[in-house]
Amino acid sequence: MNDSPVRVGLLGCGTVGSSLISLLQRQNTLIGARTGLDLVVTAVAVRDPGRARPAELADAVVTTDAASIVSDPDIDVIVEVMGGIEPARELLLAALRSGKPVVTANKALLAAHGAELFAAADAAGVDLLFEAAVAGGIPFIRPLRESLRGEPIRRVMGIMNGTTNYILTRMTEAGAQYGEALAEAQSLGYAEADPTADVEGLDAAAKISIVASLAFGVDLAGSMVDTEGISSITADDIAFATRNGFVIKLLAVAERFDTDHGDELSAAVHPVLVPIAHPLAAVRESFNAVFVEGDAVGELMFYGRGAGGDPTASAVLGDLIDAAVNLRSGAHGSIGGLGTPQLRPSEQASSAHYLSLVAVDRPGVLATIASVLGENGVSIASMAQSAADSELGGSLAEDEARLDFITHRVGRLELDATLAALRSLDAVRRVGSVIRVLVEEESES
Amino acid sequence: MNDSPVRVGLLGCGTVGSSLISLLQRQNTLIGARTGLDLVVTAVAVRDPGRARPAELADAVVTTDAASIVSDPDIDVIVEVMGGIEPARELLLAALRSGKPVVTANKALLAAHGAELFAAADAAGVDLLFEAAVAGGIPFIRPLRESLRGEPIRRVMGIMNGTTNYILTRMTEAGAQYGEALAEAQSLGYAEADPTADVEGLDAAAKISIVASLAFGVDLAGSMVDTEGISSITADDIAFATRNGFVIKLLAVAERFDTDHGDELSAAVHPVLVPIAHPLAAVRESFNAVFVEGDAVGELMFYGRGAGGDPTASAVLGDLIDAAVNLRSGAHGSIGGLGTPQLRPSEQASSAHYLSLVAVDRPGVLATIASVLGENGVSIASMAQSAADSELGGSLAEDEARLDFITHRVGRLELDATLAALRSLDAVRRVGSVIRVLVEEESES
Repeated sequence: MNDSPVRVGLLGCGTVGSSLISLLQRQNTLIGARTGLDLVVTAVAVRDPGRARPAELADAVVTTDAASIVSDPDIDVIVEVMGGIEPARELLLAALRSGKPVVTANKALLAAHGAELFAAADAAGVDLLFEAAVAGGIPFIRPLRESLRGEPIRRVMGIMNGTTNYILTRMTEAGAQYGEALAEAQSLGYAEADPTADVEGLDAAAKISIVASLAFGVDLAGSMVDTEGISSITADDIAFATRNGFVIKLLAVAERFDTDHGDELSAAVHPVLVPIAHPLAAVRESFNAVFVEGDAVGELMFYGRGAGGDPTASAVLGDLIDAAVNLRSGAHGSIGGLGTPQLRPSEQASSAHYLSLVAVDRPGVLATIASVLGENGVSIASMAQSAADSELGGSLAEDEARLDFITHRVGRLELDATLAALRSLDAVRRVGSVIRVLVEEESES
Repeated sequence: MNDSPVRVGLLGCGTVGSSLISLLQRQNTLIGARTGLDLVVTAVAVRDPGRARPAELADAVVTTDAASIVSDPDIDVIVEVMGGIEPARELLLAALRSGKPVVTANKALLAAHGAELFAAADAAGVDLLFEAAVAGGIPFIRPLRESLRGEPIRRVMGIMNGTTNYILTRMTEAGAQYGEALAEAQSLGYAEADPTADVEGLDAAAKISIVASLAFGVDLAGSMVDTEGISSITADDIAFATRNGFVIKLLAVAERFDTDHGDELSAAVHPVLVPIAHPLAAVRESFNAVFVEGDAVGELMFYGRGAGGDPTASAVLGDLIDAAVNLRSGAHGSIGGLGTPQLRPSEQASSAHYLSLVAVDRPGVLATIASVLGENGVSIASMAQSAADSELGGSLAEDEARLDFITHRVGRLELDATLAALRSLDAVRRVGSVIRVLVEEESES
């Protein structure tokens, strides 16, 4: 084994970069004992050269010129934790083309330009590793890329955004309204001042697109993911779910369907009523988890911290060690070529659903509504009616009742027709939440 | 890339071997697309040549002479799913010494002779992979070996035996007695006719010894693991746990303690009261899970099927692909050298505990018992008293009461002294279960 240090160029030195530097400092002896490697950060690109840096960087070049690090022949490996699309994309392409392995935590970049970067890595025969880009500290990408390479994966479902999981947990456990829980998440630093990317599901959509691309071997961009957030979920929806044995979670879901004309894929982010006994229901606060269903392996779940400086740095460090080991041995990983996904037409989607209606509280209304459901082929698994003076009736007028239904599996077209028919009824004041329900056999036959 | 097939020699063709053959047949096109490899089982060693074999084996050599497969220069990789210590150990050492990578699912062999096998693999510069030996289909060994190579791991706790988890789940959810739940597990094929290795924790001890060796870089044999099973747990213990917000699980635990004279390790298998909100509490039926705590990554959990032909074959196949990819690229993994573990003296162990006593039901007895606890430095977190005619009093005589305590953290020596003092009291008829309780901050400072 070559005894010279592996020289690391770090692009970005915020929370994750600083955590990485101190973790590396602390663990370098152990890493040396296990791998024979001496990893040294020799150059760091920063935005603001005046800001205080970790003491461990004393001997490193600190520069605002990231391109100079990428082109420096004395740098062996590039670690990118700066975020954003550009200049990160140009910098990483340049690094890969010059034969430098790259470790990145940049989910937005991979969701938008993953295929281009993977192709550049394969063309150069170097590693492009990105464990930290999905589910933070959870070692999930490596098992998916390597351990499950031969597994017929049917579905991957994840709680991939800690902010929304924190908000939903507070709504469930403290009975908070959405706005209150969001404000609490913001005051704790779990949510940004502009929380759109989290609460509308965009962050989770970028992550599931990366996961779907790996799981199914296709180039599935973040923009192809059907995305729905949690901002319209009410405390009453949560209360109904709790009473009926469910927890509401924002799930990112990628699924494969065998069809006569080949595999069809779907990828979506949406709120789902998850049965309380399902392992994903136990994922609380800002934790993340990814649930995998395969034909041979059955059900798997990977759970941990989806964000934060130290957990993310842990994932980056694992990748960095791997890249350095491979660099010294001349090996490199590859995810293989990515095909073009055949997306499942959205009108073929089907699921059990939770529906909430506000109707006029008079005799015969339930019969009218139930017959609309029946005529549209929607079969009811359970229902509850609440008057204005009941626990779930807080937002109702005197003459209104709330009707909550859980349906059996219903197709998208039938559901849309049903909702239109319900809205056209005089007796229906408004249709509230319409949320998917996770059922044991979610896959269609 | 070399286009010739990778020739696999399979030692053993029972449930896992047969599952592997059909999974490989089904997935070979996908594996080829992802890795460029064509994996072919060309020879199989069996015990009974007369038994029916999978149709996919038509072109393979089927023999009772396993050694002939190991020494065959036309075989590239050995997969061992025969189990047992000998002849598996001799066969795998011979395979490694002749430069053949080995994939094994044999936990008993690794727990007893892991260090010898790892050293032989390193000496020959080939892979020894064993994902399936711990937690069946769950991809846990690879993340532990690779993703977490740089992580300061503090504790690994797992539900590593599906039989005992099934029994405890039935006792918890159906109120079954231990014997009833065991009989049910046996009738479903989850437990053997002689269930000793499962219910007394020996199977889990072998697995945690492998995990501890990897997590802490030491040669920790299965025989060094303190082991206690579940056969003395009663339905009343379970009922008390449930009422107080706990689930009883059989946990395999390996932990590292920083001391002035270096790291000390402990490794044990024992029943534990797990708080209902802990992710391990949601692991039901025959599922397994491994919970990892690291200084940087925080908490991680890996969940899935710990046994069964298909899940185990999925793990073996992941390793087989890895070994074949490495073989073609000339790379190989290594867990590095294993040091000698410094075991933590067992009298330094401490934990919160659940204690159950049967005492004479007369005035002043509780005060007597409480003062014995206090004199021995045992602080009580909660307690409950049940009379003979109460729900938890079913096994009591008319004049007896049951006392259940949950203590704060107490050292092993104090606990032993307390139990001896309690047993010596006239008023104490018997001391029942003494079970550890998992607390948030289990690690000592």
